[in-house]
This record gives sequence, structure tokens and C-alpha cells, in this order.
Amino acid sequence: MGKLHGARSPSIARASAEFQRVRGLSVDLIASLEPEDCVVQAMPDVSPPKWHLAHTTWFFETLVLEPHVEGYAAFCHGYHELFNSYYEALGPRHARHHRGVLSRPTLEEVLRYRAHVDAVMLDTFERLSPAALTLIEIGIHHEQQHQELLVMDVKYNFAQNPLRPTYRPAPSSNTADAARGETRKMRFLPFGGDLFHIGHGARAFSFDNERPSHRRFVEAFTIADRLVDNGEFLAFVEDGGYRRPELWLSDGLAWVREHGIDAPLYWRRDGRGYREFTAHGDRPLDLQAPVCHVSGYEAAAYAEWAGCRLPTEFEWEVAAAGKDAQSAIWLEDGWLHPTSTAPADGSFQPFGQLWQWTRSAYEPYPGFRPEHGAISEYNGKFMSNQWVLRGGCVATPRDHVRSTYRNFFYPHQRWPFTGIRLAKDSAANEGAR
Amino acid sequence: MGKLHGARSPSIARASAEFQRVRGLSVDLIASLEPEDCVVQAMPDVSPPKWHLAHTTWFFETLVLEPHVEGYAAFCHGYHELFNSYYEALGPRHARHHRGVLSRPTLEEVLRYRAHVDAVMLDTFERLSPAALTLIEIGIHHEQQHQELLVMDVKYNFAQNPLRPTYRPAPSSNTADAARGETRKMRFLPFGGDLFHIGHGARAFSFDNERPSHRRFVEAFTIADRLVDNGEFLAFVEDGGYRRPELWLSDGLAWVREHGIDAPLYWRRDGRGYREFTAHGDRPLDLQAPVCHVSGYEAAAYAEWAGCRLPTEFEWEVAAAGKDAQSAIWLEDGWLHPTSTAPADGSFQPFGQLWQWTRSAYEPYPGFRPEHGAISEYNGKFMSNQWVLRGGCVATPRDHVRSTYRNFFYPHQRWPFTGIRLAKDSAANEGAR
Amino acid sequence: MGKLHGARSPSIARASAEFQRVRGLSVDLIASLEPEDCVVQAMPDVSPPKWHLAHTTWFFETLVLEPHVEGYAAFCHGYHELFNSYYEALGPRHARHHRGVLSRPTLEEVLRYRAHVDAVMLDTFERLSPAALTLIEIGIHHEQQHQELLVMDVKYNFAQNPLRPTYRPAPSSNTADAARGETRKMRFLPFGGDLFHIGHGARAFSFDNERPSHRRFVEAFTIADRLVDNGEFLAFVEDGGYRRPELWLSDGLAWVREHGIDAPLYWRRDGRGYREFTAHGDRPLDLQAPVCHVSGYEAAAYAEWAGCRLPTEFEWEVAAAGKDAQSAIWLEDGWLHPTSTAPADGSFQPFGQLWQWTRSAYEPYPGFRPEHGAISEYNGKFMSNQWVLRGGCVATPRDHVRSTYRNFFYPHQRWPFTGIRLAKDSAANEGAR
Amino acid sequence: MGKLHGARSPSIARASAEFQRVRGLSVDLIASLEPEDCVVQAMPDVSPPKWHLAHTTWFFETLVLEPHVEGYAAFCHGYHELFNSYYEALGPRHARHHRGVLSRPTLEEVLRYRAHVDAVMLDTFERLSPAALTLIEIGIHHEQQHQELLVMDVKYNFAQNPLRPTYRPAPSSNTADAARGETRKMRFLPFGGDLFHIGHGARAFSFDNERPSHRRFVEAFTIADRLVDNGEFLAFVEDGGYRRPELWLSDGLAWVREHGIDAPLYWRRDGRGYREFTAHGDRPLDLQAPVCHVSGYEAAAYAEWAGCRLPTEFEWEVAAAGKDAQSAIWLEDGWLHPTSTAPADGSFQPFGQLWQWTRSAYEPYPGFRPEHGAISEYNGKFMSNQWVLRGGCVATPRDHVRSTYRNFFYPHQRWPFTGIRLAKDSAANEGAR
Repeated sequence: MGKLHGARSPSIARASAEFQRVRGLSVDLIASLEPEDCVVQAMPDVSPPKWHLAHTTWFFETLVLEPHVEGYAAFCHGYHELFNSYYEALGPRHARHHRGVLSRPTLEEVLRYRAHVDAVMLDTFERLSPAALTLIEIGIHHEQQHQELLVMDVKYNFAQNPLRPTYRPAPSSNTADAARGETRKMRFLPFGGDLFHIGHGARAFSFDNERPSHRRFVEAFTIADRLVDNGEFLAFVEDGGYRRPELWLSDGLAWVREHGIDAPLYWRRDGRGYREFTAHGDRPLDLQAPVCHVSGYEAAAYAEWAGCRLPTEFEWEVAAAGKDAQSAIWLEDGWLHPTSTAPADGSFQPFGQLWQWTRSAYEPYPGFRPEHGAISEYNGKFMSNQWVLRGGCVATPRDHVRSTYRNFFYPHQRWPFTGIRLAKDSAANEGAR
Repeated sequence: MGKLHGARSPSIARASAEFQRVRGLSVDLIASLEPEDCVVQAMPDVSPPKWHLAHTTWFFETLVLEPHVEGYAAFCHGYHELFNSYYEALGPRHARHHRGVLSRPTLEEVLRYRAHVDAVMLDTFERLSPAALTLIEIGIHHEQQHQELLVMDVKYNFAQNPLRPTYRPAPSSNTADAARGETRKMRFLPFGGDLFHIGHGARAFSFDNERPSHRRFVEAFTIADRLVDNGEFLAFVEDGGYRRPELWLSDGLAWVREHGIDAPLYWRRDGRGYREFTAHGDRPLDLQAPVCHVSGYEAAAYAEWAGCRLPTEFEWEVAAAGKDAQSAIWLEDGWLHPTSTAPADGSFQPFGQLWQWTRSAYEPYPGFRPEHGAISEYNGKFMSNQWVLRGGCVATPRDHVRSTYRNFFYPHQRWPFTGIRLAKDSAANEGAR
Repeated sequence: MGKLHGARSPSIARASAEFQRVRGLSVDLIASLEPEDCVVQAMPDVSPPKWHLAHTTWFFETLVLEPHVEGYAAFCHGYHELFNSYYEALGPRHARHHRGVLSRPTLEEVLRYRAHVDAVMLDTFERLSPAALTLIEIGIHHEQQHQELLVMDVKYNFAQNPLRPTYRPAPSSNTADAARGETRKMRFLPFGGDLFHIGHGARAFSFDNERPSHRRFVEAFTIADRLVDNGEFLAFVEDGGYRRPELWLSDGLAWVREHGIDAPLYWRRDGRGYREFTAHGDRPLDLQAPVCHVSGYEAAAYAEWAGCRLPTEFEWEVAAAGKDAQSAIWLEDGWLHPTSTAPADGSFQPFGQLWQWTRSAYEPYPGFRPEHGAISEYNGKFMSNQWVLRGGCVATPRDHVRSTYRNFFYPHQRWPFTGIRLAKDSAANEGAR
Repeated sequence: MGKLHGARSPSIARASAEFQRVRGLSVDLIASLEPEDCVVQAMPDVSPPKWHLAHTTWFFETLVLEPHVEGYAAFCHGYHELFNSYYEALGPRHARHHRGVLSRPTLEEVLRYRAHVDAVMLDTFERLSPAALTLIEIGIHHEQQHQELLVMDVKYNFAQNPLRPTYRPAPSSNTADAARGETRKMRFLPFGGDLFHIGHGARAFSFDNERPSHRRFVEAFTIADRLVDNGEFLAFVEDGGYRRPELWLSDGLAWVREHGIDAPLYWRRDGRGYREFTAHGDRPLDLQAPVCHVSGYEAAAYAEWAGCRLPTEFEWEVAAAGKDAQSAIWLEDGWLHPTSTAPADGSFQPFGQLWQWTRSAYEPYPGFRPEHGAISEYNGKFMSNQWVLRGGCVATPRDHVRSTYRNFFYPHQRWPFTGIRLAKDSAANEGAR
């Protein structure tokens, strides 16, 4: 993809192939779903699967075809309003929390819409301007984000159904066992304080929120070599963690009390202990697997209970620099549930398994400039009240994240695949105070 | 059906035929829908079409098969919770406002559920006790109520979709023109004050809320010989009716202001005037057709503006006594939209077209006794804060209503097919005060 | 007062004396309060004491002085908006739920406002037209209603304060013991079915909602000769009454569940049993005193549990006809808490102690006509969704109620002094069904 | 105060004098209020004046007297619950949003409570441990914070009253004119990028949230030499600023739309233009005075509109280092309303007039450690979802703020005395990107 960026020497063939590959994966993700599954929106934060399929198509139609392909006529005029997510500059939008009231267009019609737009796109790739190609590149990464959202959303929807449907069968247990590392004692890797370059400065693709690369002084810190597991989190629960105000941020405690929170999102207690709802259905809680679907508030409270804290996003980026993201388990691997807190080989792998909450508010980097045009709304306007997460998860497409990649959610949200990586001030540092 | 009641001399064959006819009609009602359409619940008051199909089946399974057919095993244990509407005595229920989050069971699975229960029912009709046959009779009338609800709910769901889908094509305009009466001046038919018998005392089927027949003194009154039409209601709108506090009940005014109400539910203003959403899609407002989808508050405010009032349910019943309900247009006729405020022949027809708001709170009749068992929750527990409506509508199955039939909704609800019939105190009566 | 009505032969002197007496009583009611107590509004339904004092004054200023006394200039222009309760015809109003944000005018300023208006009123009594005198009569009865509201509201406000302040000391226990009747077995007094005249037809004062007198057929019934007491209601509580859905109206059950209701409003459980907050402070629950501060929903559920029902307002009026209201305990007696379910002499006393919920929705009587002018908003616009209560209470001024008097509240409200009187269908009547 | 800190060489006499001075100022602040004014809480964020007076007293009673003075008995046991603000470790608390329902204790009783606690405090100052003296020092700064809150809250309460009461008369206009500087063109002062020490490292008093002093790299920036004035903000309003989505953060736009925001909190349009409510009552908007009572969202949108941005808290601190806070206008000066965007002498004065929104989320500094004990809840638990403000305002007591002082509010809050100082990236810096 790197060569595409800036369209300095665009390999049209590669771009076109990548477009087809990513577009195809989206449709693969609904292969196991019924038409009825593609309509449901069980809370305002999630979107129906067919909405994701249509919205990502709308993105190419509205941002690439309409402005850049002369004579292109919208597939269906009404889709413009239905499938605009949040672009104020692109006209009125169907209310987000009402996406689940739309039975039409049907799934079949949405697939026809996709086929139509894809055909026109592939037809015109060679004639597109560098600016259009840049938008396509963003559109491909955008579609990857919606692939992860689609999986998160189906899981959430299914979890609300007392029949507890299964999205996809679990991988065979042989494979699972092989992938599973030993649970090892959590170690904290030390990093010295220094002035670092943070953010994305390379020629390869990045989102605007990763830029510009800038200097940031980071004090010495240590960071856990693995994620917190269910067994550890269960100890927090059993120690009354949810009922001990001293562990919580004030807003977090209010959230816990208002909603009666007493366990991660998909835990459910039955007579014999906790069970967990997964993309493979309901099953006993695996104490050695990473705890997942916790809010930022829960992550911070757990860290406090454990005598640690969450890392800042800058600490995380310093620690992750140069690590290999490829070797992690990604969406295409089909696991769809975290299995291991760390690689079996004992190495430090900051990527994959689960997004890791940082204790950094989502703010613009010094010198931040949004993209131009409608796409300027992509990231900048969300830079308040959210927290940064880092690292990617089992539902993230391979190649999508990097060490500078910034994901963000409100600290109460927990339907993403989120987990906990702990950090501490360096002992040396502490001594100084 | 009369002979079935009380199972004194049950004609099993007729009951079974009626069961099959009504069950079949429910499935016919979704013939024009896509699977996606059957999932949606656009507000808490409506239910997804497949929920109606399943709930009415659950009714027979739970109230007839399980208690009365030895060895009957539930088709799917989980359905018990999913498809119980409001029967506290029958265990936990899936939350009403979350019916739209259920993609499973799919429509196809629900149809299999229906087929299964129908087969068992038909198999065992002859062996059932009189008590079971009475429950079946209630179940059939119950299913008819859900047929009307299904049509109301699909219409509401579709109206929220900017694509404005059509439920069914309109009948041919020839037929429509023939059915249409002249718009005639509204006349008020006089009835003298007297002691009347109100309520249902005959052997034929009735719901418990229509019983017992009792004496009620009704002062002299007059009642309009036709429904209020769109043209008349438009005059109210254009006269600032929604903004004139003196016309409104206090609760109604609060409702108007909170929700910014300024027209009937399905009216929409565009550049050239009002349009109306119908089961046949969006079309220009027909000024001569009855105004429909108004709340009780709007009906009462209109009546005040017109120098009239709404009738009491007792006045309506007195006026409707002995009138022929058969000749009206019903669900089976396929109109699904009111076309005429009164019959073309100039006669007084209280039945059909639209449910008519009365100014009577839904209360128990003197000596009211609910049915026994779980079915006791059918009516009695709803007897607060609702208003009685009378007469049936174009979405009501033929044979379902009668002059004693009491429908009921909260006064702010307007997704049912509701209209306005005016009444007045008798002039003689007025003079006396 | 009778002669004043209709101003046919107004005894100005008597009217003026009555005006002074009632106006004086209002001020007496705050004698035991601090200025701070007069500001507080602990929920939207209550009003601050000084608001009541000002609003009742505004009533005379706005409805009598401004239209009927030439040259009268408003005491303070801003009061017009602040102290208009709900009269849409009289201009904008300060929002009801924000009455507690008004520290100004201070109590002292409000008392000056009262003194000013009273002085002008007394000065001009003789020169007023019959129409103005009629409005004064309404204003006096209106002020009496606010006297009761003021006591209810202070009690509610104080109950929210953990310091549990006392409004007034309890009467000496000697007096209390004397007033207390024996607790006697509840008997049901029989009344035959017949056509009755209901409503107010006499020349004496009545509110428009009591008129016109009209015929109403009432089936035979029996009515309890005393109120339900705390001991009886406690048995309901201990029998799980609040958790048994079959006893409740559907809306009532939703209210119980949403608010976690499990006892009457002012009951509070401590280690040794229930305590009750009263106008005299917190004290152990008196099992022989009438249960009070229950909602209509609780009253109806209790009645169901007891195998009875609530009376209709018509039954109550039939039973109360000709009974002596004077002999009951009223506001001026200073008790401010019900002490006895029935008179010590064993007689039937429908009046006093507590307002009694009826199972009658608050609806217009046949032929109802509101008063003319702004005062038309007094009653009619509230005739939806509320229930009628009858009989008056210990906080109602003497002479204020009569057998035709209709009080009304929403069925969930329970800060008024409300109690429960049971009724049943007549056995004969029951046999017939 | 510096010597007191850590009680290394406590000058008891100075501490005691400071205690008396600050305690006295709190009572002075209500000198112009009526008892009724001291009860009101017009929204959940504000507290009644007498609550502030009692809570600050509770602080000394609970954190100093009870643990550190043997035999001290609480003045009134019930106050413990009533006047605990948010200390979970110190037991149950009266709900914050219900502070306005408490008429008792009366203002007079609260003043007696203050006098009692002050007397015991002064009596025991000499015998207190260094730990207790440290808590007193915090308590004094805590009381200063509540002095500002009291002024903010009275202003908010009065603004809700249509009578628009005046808190205090305005200073004479001679003085005002003298204090007013010329409105000058906004200039941007340049600061070079560098590694700075941020936070409080000196021995003098600081809150825990200002510590520890740590290194932070700040890129080159420029910062405005004066605040934005009403005239400039009016131009934003008139340019449709509130209706242009591209200027707003997404959460900010949602807030604007939900609440219909179209001007700063205390602006009100009448026939001739805007008026502004101040501590001195209602008056025409002064176009040359600083715009005040804007939310963080409004500040950020204005900055965007002006082609600038808000400074980070680190930039602000770098710019303010070494500036003289004493020369600004503070609470004791009695102005209570900002008069000038910058000093008349043309100097750069970052302190005073209005708190300045920064675009920095309120987060812990690297190595942050909360105070020990109950006081640990003072700051740390609020470090989510809020923004940092810097500089102090006309309602802040003199000596209270410093260049490292961090105030914090949610970005939608605007009842504090908030204003806008703009910043930009350095041109050099920009060129580099």
C-alpha cells in the first residue's frame, strides 16, 4: 500500500487488487448470517450488519465516484441519507440510533448496491486522479475498520438474544491448544525516560490522527509483558472490586452504580460459576484467557487494585516500536476470541488479541491538521471525552494497525474487544519523588 | 362461533375450520413482506411481524396444548420467554421494547413453529375438553386482534423509513371510486335519554371486558352520522388548533408541546401541501377521506374546536345497537385505508373505517369479573389511564367487533387506525341547564 | 356563603368576613416555619409555601382587582408570571418544577404583597359587581385548596430532610386518646341499586366539576363503615402484596417496579419495625390508625388482596348523602394526622381523616360546562388520566368539602392525605352473575 | 503559607490568622443575601450558599477536629451526612442534586455551626500535630475554592429568577473606567519549543494535582496577549457560528443541538440587542469586556472559527511562568465581573479576569500520587472527561492561584467564570509540516 500513498508512483494494479480483496472480505463476514441478523441494532452504538455493508459502499460512491467520475449517477438517491454516518458536510443523515428500524433496502438489495459500485470502481481505477486514489486508500482502511465493527456489533446483538446464537463455530481445539501459551507470571519490562518521536512520519499510509510525528518526553516506566487474564480479573471481582469506591474514577463509579455493573460485559453467572458469551456462543469462562470487553473505567479500577496503572498511549508506542504486528492473530485467522495473554515463545507482543486501554485522553497531536474536504470529519471532531486504545484485536484485519495507530472509545464503552495491559512508574523514578 | 361458546354443544368441525381460517389469514398478512421487514420494531409500542406470528402461536401452545394435551412438549423451550407478551402468571418475559433485537428465531423458523402447533392442534381438537375449547375460542379472537396489530405495526415501521416502502398496492381506483360516498354535511342523529342495557349479555362470544350487561342511564344526546374528514381537520390545523391551549386537555397540551405535534401521525408537509403515508405508500392527502391516526387528545381538541364533544362509550353503544357490522369494509377486503366518512347510501354506519375515540376512561363495568386463570390478565389489569374506542377499522378482521366491543388505548397513542366521531348534548338537554 | 352564590342577594359583610377569615388562616399556617422552609420545593408536584401564599394572592389580584377595580395597578409586574399556576389564558408562567429556584420575592415581601392586596380588596368589596363577588367566592374556596396543599407540601419537603423537622407539635395525647375510637371489625353497609341524582344542584357554592346534577344508575353495593388501618395494610405488605402481580393494575405494577415501591410513602423500616413520618415528626407506626399516603394503585391492589374493590365515586356519593361533615376533624382542629378509622360512636362517617380513592376516572359529568373566562381552566382541562377522591382529610379546611365534592389526582400520587375505603358488589347482585 | 507546608517550621500564629481571615471572608460573601437566597439550588451543579458555609466547616470538623482533637464531639451528628460532598471514605452522603431541598439547618444554625467549629479550632491550633496543620492548610485552600463556587452559584441561581436580583452593586464607574484598558488588537506572543519543567516543585503549598514537577516537551507556539472580547464573540454568533458543524467537536455539536444553545450562558437578546446578566444585575452587553461563561466546546469552536486553537495547559504554564498574579483583580476587590481583556499598560497578564479553557484533558501528571487518607479523593478521582482551565478569575480569592494551578470542569459547563485565550502553532513549526 505504501506506494499508493500520495499517489507518487501508484501501482494501480496493486491498489485495485487490494480494493477487491478488502471488499470481498466484508461480504465473507456475513456468510454465516441470516437476512434477519443483518437488520438488528440492539443499542445505539452498534449498527446493523447490512448498514456496515452499505455505508462502506456509500463512502466510495460519495467520496470517489460522485466527485471524481464524470456522469456517475447515484445507485439510489435515498441511500445518500440512509448511509451517511456522521459527515455533516455531506447532508442530512438518518439518525444513528434508528438504523435498526430500516428493513429496506434488504440485504439482497445492499449486496446489489455493493456489486454495482464495485464494478464501476474497478472499471475506472485507471482513469482516477491521484486525489481520488488517496481517497480510495482511506476508503479501504475505513472499510477495514467497519469489518471489525461488524463483528463487534453482531456479537453484541446476539448476546441480547436469550437463544444465544452463534456467529461462527470455534476453531478446532487442536489449533486452539497449539496457539495457547503457558500462563506466565506477569513481568514488567523497563523503559528509560527520554525524549521520543511519537506519531507517524513515514510515507506509508496513516490516518491523520497519527500525525505529525513530534517530540514527547516520556519518563521512565515499566509495562507488563502480557495482558491481564480472566483469573486475575475474577480475583478483583471476588475482592469486591466493583463495590470499592477508592479504586474508581468518580465518573466510573457513577457508571457502575447507575447500570449495576458487576462483571465484564459478556460474563454471566450461573449456578456453577461464570460463563462468557463469545462469537462461538456461550461457554464457561476460561480463566487463563485474557479478560475482555471491559470499559476504560474497569481497566483503570483493576489497575489501581493491582497497584499499577494503565500506560499512557506514548508509553505504549515507545514499548511497541519495532515489534512485529504480522505474527499476531487477526480477523482473517478466524479466531474471533482472545485465547492467550502472550505468545507461547515468551516474547513481548504488544499487538493483537485485544485493544488495550491507555490512560490517555484522545487529543490532537501538536500541529495536527485534519485531511481536507469532507474527510476532515474523519477523526478530529471526535477528540474530546474519549480515551485512546492501542494494539488491535482478534477482530481487526491483518495489516490494519501499526505502532502509531490510535483507536478511541468513550471510557464507558465495552462492546469493542478491549483488554488490560498494566504499567508502572519506574522504581528509580518513584524513588526520586 | 356462538355455539362454541361455553362448549355447551360444541361444533368441533366448525371450530376447527375457524381455527384454520384465522391462522391462515395471519400468514397471508406477511405474504408481501421480506424477512427483514419481519424483524423491525420502530418503537416500543409496536412489535415485529414475526413476533406477532410467534406470540399468537405461543398462546395456543401455552394455554391449550401444554395444560390440556398430555405429553405435549414445547416446540422450543426458549420461546416461552420470548413470546409471552404480558402474562405475569406465565413466567419471565423478554422485555417488550427489546423485541426488535431478536433476529432469531428467523421468520422461517417461526413459520415452522406455527405449522407444528397447528398440526398438533388440529390433531387433538376432538379430544379437547370444553375448557380447552373455550380457550381456543379466545385464542382465535386474540389472533384476530394481532392481525390488526400486525398491519398497524408494519405501517408504523415503514413510515419511519425514508424510502417509504409500500405494504400492499392500493385497490384499483375504480373500486375505490365506487366505494366512496358523497361527502355530505355532517348531521347529528338524536337519541333520547333513558335507562339502557349496556354490555354483552348474549350467549355468543364476548371478551370479559364487555360483561356483564348492566343498566346505565344515558342523558339525551346527538351523534354525528359520519366521521370527521381530512378537509375538516385541516381547517382545525390551519386555524392554529395545535397552538390554542383553550382547546386542549392539560395532559394533551403537554404532549403536543413535548413532542412538537402539529398534524396527524402520518401527515407530512411538502412544498405543495400535505401528503399522507398509507399502507399503499405516500400520497397526497385526500381531503374527503376520514382523518385518521389521531390521538385521543387530538380528537378531543378537534371536538372542542368544532363546538362539540366526543361521545361516551355508552352513547356510542346506544347509537350502534342493531346496526349491521357486516356491511362495512374489513381487513379481508384489503382496503387498509379509510376511504369514506360514511356509506354512499346515506345510512348511519357506526362500524368500520376507523376506531372512534370515546370520552370514556376504560373502566370495569359494575360486577366485572375477569376470566379465570392466566387469561385473567387479558383485560382487567389494563383498566387505568386508557380511553375506550369503538367500532373497528379497515384493519380489523370481519366478524371481530360488535356493538358492545371495547377497544382501548392511551390517549396519546395514534398508530392505531383511529378517527373522530362527534357528539353533542341534546338541545333540549342544554336548554334545561 | 350560600347567599353569595350567583350574587343574587349578596351579604357583603359576610363575604368580607369570610374573606378575612380564610386569608388569615393561610398566614397562620406558616407561623411555625422559618423563612428557609418557605422556599423549598422537593419535587415538581409540590410548591414552596411562599409560592402558595403568593399565588392565592395573585388569584385575587388578577381575576378580581385588575379586571374589576378601575385604576388598580399591579403590586409588582413581575409577579404576574411568577405566580400564575396554569392559566394559559393569563399569559406566560414560570415553569412549575422551577418554583423552588425562586428565593425572591422573600417571605417578607410576599406577606407585604398579601397585605396590600387584602387592603385593596376590603376597601372595594362594597363596590364590586356580582360577577366579581362570584370570583371572590371561587377565590376563597381556591385558597382553601391551597391551604391543604401547603400542609401536604411542607410535610413532603420535611420528609426529604434527614434531620426530619417537625411542622407542628402533636396535640396532647389526652385529646388524641379521647378522639380515638375503638378499632372495630370492618362492616359493609348495604345500598340498593337505583337511579340516583349525582352532582350538585343546590344554590350553595360548588365547583363546576360537581355540576350539573344528573341521573346515574348505581347497582346495589356495600361500602365499608371505616377506613383500612395500618395493621391491615401491614398484613398486605407482609403477605408480599407489592410483589404479587395478580393484585395490580398493569400501570401500577410498572410504577412499583420502576420506583422500587414497597410501603406507603412515609413508612420507613428500622431495626424494630416501621416508623412513619408525620406533621409531628417521625414516630412508630400506629397500627390502629388509618393507613395514609397510598397511591390509587396501592389502594386498588390492597382492595384486590382483601377480596374487595374501591367504590366508584357515585357509590361513595350515594353513601355519603345526608351525612354530617361538620363533626369530622378538619385543618382548623390542628390534628394534621389521621387518628381513627371511624368515629368512636360507631356511626358511619364518610367525611374527614383521609381522602378516599375511588375507582372512577375524573371525567366531565353529562352536560358539564366550565366556568366562563380564565377560570374555565380551573377544572375541565384536568379531566384525563386522573382518579376521583372523595371525603376530605385532616388538612382540609372545615366547610370546604361536601358529599358532591370531587378531588382528583393521578393514580400514582400519594403525597396527598389519601386512604382506603373498601366496597363490594352486593351479594344479591353477585348471585345474579 | 509556605512555611506551614509540611509543618517543617509552622508559624502557628500566621496559620491561625490566615484561618480566621479566610473563614471570615466566607461569611462576608453572604452579607448581601437573604436567608431565602441561601437555600436555593437551581441546578445539580450548584450548591446552596448555606451548604457551602456548612460543608467547609464540616471539612475542618471531620478531617481535623474529629481525628486530631481528643474528645471532640460532633456539633450535630446529622450534619455528617448532609455536608459531606463526595468523600466515599467518610460515609453516606445526602444526594448532591437534592441539596436544595434542605431548609434545615437554617442559615442561622449554620452560622452557629461555623462559630462553634471556629472556636474549637482556634482553641486547639497550638496543640495540633503537623499532620493536622497540613490538613488545615488544605482546608483553607479548599474554603477559598468554595468561596468562588458560592459566588458562581448565587449568580446562577439569581439568573434563573425572572426578577433578576442583584448579588452586589457594581463598583463605581470611575473605578471601572480607570481599570479598563484600551481594547487593542490581539497579538500573539511567541514561545520557542523546548523541554520544560511543568508542575509544582517548590516548598510552598500546592494541590496534589499540580505535582510532581516533571519534564514535558512543548513545541514552539504563540499565545494571545489578551482574552477574546464580547464584540469578537458576537461576530462569531452573527456569522452563524453555533450552526456551522465544521467548527465544532462532535460532542459539542450534540450539546448545542440538544440544549438549543445559541449564545453564552448569561446573554439574552431583547429588542435592542444582547443583554448580559452579571453579579450586579442585568445590563447591556459590553462589547469590549471579555466574553465570559462559555463552555469548553464554545471556546474550541470560537478558536476554530478564528483560525486558531486553544492552548494546551502546558503552553499556558510556560507562558505564565514568572508573571505576577498579585496585580490582577481578585474576589476581595469586589469587581465580580471581568472588565478588561488585558491590562491597560499593555503588559501580558495571564492571571485573573477569567479562567481560560485549555485544550488539555485533566489527567494525572507522570508520577502523580494523591494525598493520603480521605483527602486522597480530593483530585485524583476526577481525572477523566474534564478539561483543564488556568489562570483564576474575578471570583477567585487573591493568593489562591499560581502558574501551576489546575482547575477543571466538564467541557459543557459554563457557569464558572470562563473565558477564551487563543493560541497557534508557530509559523516556523507550521512550515515544517
